[in-house]
Amino acid sequence: MNEINFDVPDSLKLNLGDRSYSLEFGSDLRTDVASFVRKLTESGRKVAVVTDRHVADSLGADLGSVFPGAVPLILPSGESTKSLENYGHVLDFLAASRLDRSGVVLALGGGVIGDLAGFAAASYLRGIDFVQVPTTLLAMVDSSVGGKTGINLESGKNLVGSFHQPRSVFISTHFLRTLPAREFAAGAAEVIKYGLISDAKLFAQLEARTLSPDHPELAAVIRCCCEIKARIVEADEFERAAEGGRALLNLGHTFGHAIERVTGYTKYLHGEAVAVGLCAAAQLSADVCGFPTNDAARVEKVLERHHLPVHLREPLKVGELLEAMAHDKKVRAGLPRFVLLRAVGEAITHDSVPATAVEKALRSVGAA
Amino acid sequence: MNEINFDVPDSLKLNLGDRSYSLEFGSDLRTDVASFVRKLTESGRKVAVVTDRHVADSLGADLGSVFPGAVPLILPSGESTKSLENYGHVLDFLAASRLDRSGVVLALGGGVIGDLAGFAAASYLRGIDFVQVPTTLLAMVDSSVGGKTGINLESGKNLVGSFHQPRSVFISTHFLRTLPAREFAAGAAEVIKYGLISDAKLFAQLEARTLSPDHPELAAVIRCCCEIKARIVEADEFERAAEGGRALLNLGHTFGHAIERVTGYTKYLHGEAVAVGLCAAAQLSADVCGFPTNDAARVEKVLERHHLPVHLREPLKVGELLEAMAHDKKVRAGLPRFVLLRAVGEAITHDSVPATAVEKALRSVGAA
Repeated sequence: MNEINFDVPDSLKLNLGDRSYSLEFGSDLRTDVASFVRKLTESGRKVAVVTDRHVADSLGADLGSVFPGAVPLILPSGESTKSLENYGHVLDFLAASRLDRSGVVLALGGGVIGDLAGFAAASYLRGIDFVQVPTTLLAMVDSSVGGKTGINLESGKNLVGSFHQPRSVFISTHFLRTLPAREFAAGAAEVIKYGLISDAKLFAQLEARTLSPDHPELAAVIRCCCEIKARIVEADEFERAAEGGRALLNLGHTFGHAIERVTGYTKYLHGEAVAVGLCAAAQLSADVCGFPTNDAARVEKVLERHHLPVHLREPLKVGELLEAMAHDKKVRAGLPRFVLLRAVGEAITHDSVPATAVEKALRSVGAA
Repeated sequence: MNEINFDVPDSLKLNLGDRSYSLEFGSDLRTDVASFVRKLTESGRKVAVVTDRHVADSLGADLGSVFPGAVPLILPSGESTKSLENYGHVLDFLAASRLDRSGVVLALGGGVIGDLAGFAAASYLRGIDFVQVPTTLLAMVDSSVGGKTGINLESGKNLVGSFHQPRSVFISTHFLRTLPAREFAAGAAEVIKYGLISDAKLFAQLEARTLSPDHPELAAVIRCCCEIKARIVEADEFERAAEGGRALLNLGHTFGHAIERVTGYTKYLHGEAVAVGLCAAAQLSADVCGFPTNDAARVEKVLERHHLPVHLREPLKVGELLEAMAHDKKVRAGLPRFVLLRAVGEAITHDSVPATAVEKALRSVGAA
């Protein structure tokens, strides 16, 4: 991992043919975003900014200076905003703003805003351009790369959406200074995941120094995660690989989603559920494919150092968790697929994990 | 145009790389559809049938025999069904039916059902397979080819959607025997359009013999239209051609959409508005690019023979129609693009038609 020059934005290219795009990284890209937006509007293209109440409040007057002339759509904060109803609000906003096919949707916010505004951009006039300015660590390392957009249904999260790559992504770590500590930690769970699936050096670095908003190499660490995801997405854009591929990004997520589902999405932030899921996946890997038990202990320790849960806060029922896993949308024809670790930095997909081993892993993180 | 053997379905391949698919044509494909559905379910794939009240009532017991075991979602008939609300109903239906990524949405109905169910299939789990069984002439010759799916917003028709090619299309003309005459005629307007844009022989055939549900070559005529559209879509799947391409399919539609919009989508069926629009486009073509005036007269005559309007039923205001055209979603950066005829069977796109000529064309069909 190289040092980043913080004065000049550092760029990462995602190579996806005519859907290729660049991510820009820096400690403060406000003027870059402002000049990017100005260039668009000067060329006659309308830019519609979608954000949420929390981001709008913490930006204050900045919102006007970064997006001069824009009247943003400000949605409520929180996961429940990713609904069909708000999808309709965004679409009505784009139509009322008279965006034509040259229009651009700019999502300013966390994963909820990015996923929702991205899906609206994907489907308005059958697809217009879309730019992401993520404001949370989770959105920076996860949803800003790969083009997954979507909304939730009553019956499940992210059940509706499409693949729609952004045209540009601006990752400006200054947003993280005002991010609540709990949300920062939740994002760190995904950073740790990247180390586990494909970068032992990144993992060791996180062990040596806990990530924080004032970590001197924060932008470089985020860039490293985006680069790992970029290479995986380039090889498997639409998640169709028979093994490996994009599915590897779900390490800890089959467990994590089940935990979120069983607790009604109220007790754990996504990253917190993933943290517990990473521990369960590490145990399962030790049990099923030779992942060293002392490495499983390292996983727990680094998560704890990052203020993340490694056990269920209250015991959940094994049966309910297994039932929730069978509903996971990655399931094809009833068979859940797990992502397992052979070593730190080396993940594989596994289609036929025995149910008893899954149960044992669930019990190891406190399921009863 | 060759004769079709009505006993064996005749097939047309749409070549779109990994999105390629076939259309099957015949006078009665009920058993073909039934066996196709049975094969899917026997291989463990769930099939969700979406239809409307009108189709369900006219099929009666047939619905059960063609789709054994299926519990179809029956939506209200009519254009207002193509709403965000019903999109949500279809998605909830797919989730409640527990469709996974191997699931298949089967749209049984006219353009409204095909567009709505197609968009749900395009976005449920970020895209699952989709099969079309069109039951109207309009849907057979138009929406069954090309993969455009979508819904309406309050502020405009088809403002939301995506490109999602079906996996198979079954065009069975027996459905047309119970189609109301006015709807059959509306579909004929699009058939005439295909003759005008690229098949002088088809046009002459329609002049010689009016299309009707018992026309001996009905399936062959529909196949001919689908083939014209297929070749155009193959060359310009996402409607990005700088000139020509998919836009040619909009002959008469810039006028037609404006007529529908100004009359609030209540007075003209889509095909009826297109019929008036074809007359306006023929006049405009005569004025601007040398389309022979006697050919413009032929256009009027063949539409009249097919029981279609060639003038506005009540005069509409030129100003309102022009304003509605500026809202057309095909407009990019404010410039409307027209499709014009050089000759019967030869259409072009034209980016800079003078407003005075457009006004004159509107007046020629009765605008005031």
